[in-house]
Amino acid sequence: METTKRREQLKAALVAAAEWEINTGGLRGLKARQLAYKVGCAVGAIYNVVSDLDDLILLVNARTLDEIEHKLVAMAGPAHDPDEATAQLVRLALVYLDFAAEHTLRWRALFDHRLPEGRDLPDWYVRNQVRLFGYIEQPVAMLQPSASPEQRRLTARSLFSAVHGMVMLGLEEKLQRIPLPALREQVTAVVTAIGRGLREVP
Amino acid sequence: METTKRREQLKAALVAAAEWEINTGGLRGLKARQLAYKVGCAVGAIYNVVSDLDDLILLVNARTLDEIEHKLVAMAGPAHDPDEATAQLVRLALVYLDFAAEHTLRWRALFDHRLPEGRDLPDWYVRNQVRLFGYIEQPVAMLQPSASPEQRRLTARSLFSAVHGMVMLGLEEKLQRIPLPALREQVTAVVTAIGRGLREVP
Repeated sequence: METTKRREQLKAALVAAAEWEINTGGLRGLKARQLAYKVGCAVGAIYNVVSDLDDLILLVNARTLDEIEHKLVAMAGPAHDPDEATAQLVRLALVYLDFAAEHTLRWRALFDHRLPEGRDLPDWYVRNQVRLFGYIEQPVAMLQPSASPEQRRLTARSLFSAVHGMVMLGLEEKLQRIPLPALREQVTAVVTAIGRGLREVP
Repeated sequence: METTKRREQLKAALVAAAEWEINTGGLRGLKARQLAYKVGCAVGAIYNVVSDLDDLILLVNARTLDEIEHKLVAMAGPAHDPDEATAQLVRLALVYLDFAAEHTLRWRALFDHRLPEGRDLPDWYVRNQVRLFGYIEQPVAMLQPSASPEQRRLTARSLFSAVHGMVMLGLEEKLQRIPLPALREQVTAVVTAIGRGLREVP
């Protein structure tokens, strides 16, 4: 019993330390030795609570997804007409942009991390990802009431992908970084256009 | 004279070999030793024609940009009304998607390659990137005739980013890859919606 509790404490400490490291130096900055030093355990002890660093990164990424979800929840709620649905899509997109701008390295880790060849993402993680799309499906359903659930899911994913692309390339230094206020305007303009364009004319 | 010619030949051979390697194994697969073996030169000879592998990757990426541009040119041309402009945006987006689907690793190298800290992209390369956005600015100008050139540039970049996001996450194994025909439909639907929504009502 006591051992289980100690393991859980060590695991929590490792996840917190890994999160800090990723948010400071990105995925590349994550080193087992440094983590062990930070939480005050032996390097080998890490592998008693996670099977490898990839496992640890998944736990950090799951926390990041949770944090994004909490912010999305605050923006969600029923939309009563297509204009409200469009406004809601814009709010969701801006929440996502703001999160990415504030926690860039941690957000990037969600997309940059790749499991070694042949290893699939665990089901619990995939379910977390998919749940986030649900927040977009609601307003999409208001814009396209006659679309099937499957079509809505695809549209929600496409909308997310479009916004993600704007956020990613907008925050990217390589292609000349867009200042956050201008990027917020761009995301607002494009998502508003999508909302307007997607809307079924009765 | 003879030396210059030989250098140029070696350079061209190295770029071709590097392109092949990137298209087969991605950026990570690129190794100086393997390149030297392929073109039949000493490893050290590589550094007589490029300063390092990053330089070589930039040359490969520039060729990829050229190839994409050739395909875009075939789709460009004046749009006479907003519907034509929207249809053109869809065609450009599909060309981009098809290229990415066919040459995924080479296309990914455009975005995954990062110069070492403190080194900027050379001007000639940045100019190549920027030129590609020009093809999107033309139909955008038809949709939003009263926008300033600066606004158009931003909108073109946002549209590109949105399409890039859909292409990237659609082809991504991690988030469940979307079959190409379905992805083409999604890109068509979203870009059509954007075109419709962006259009200025006179």
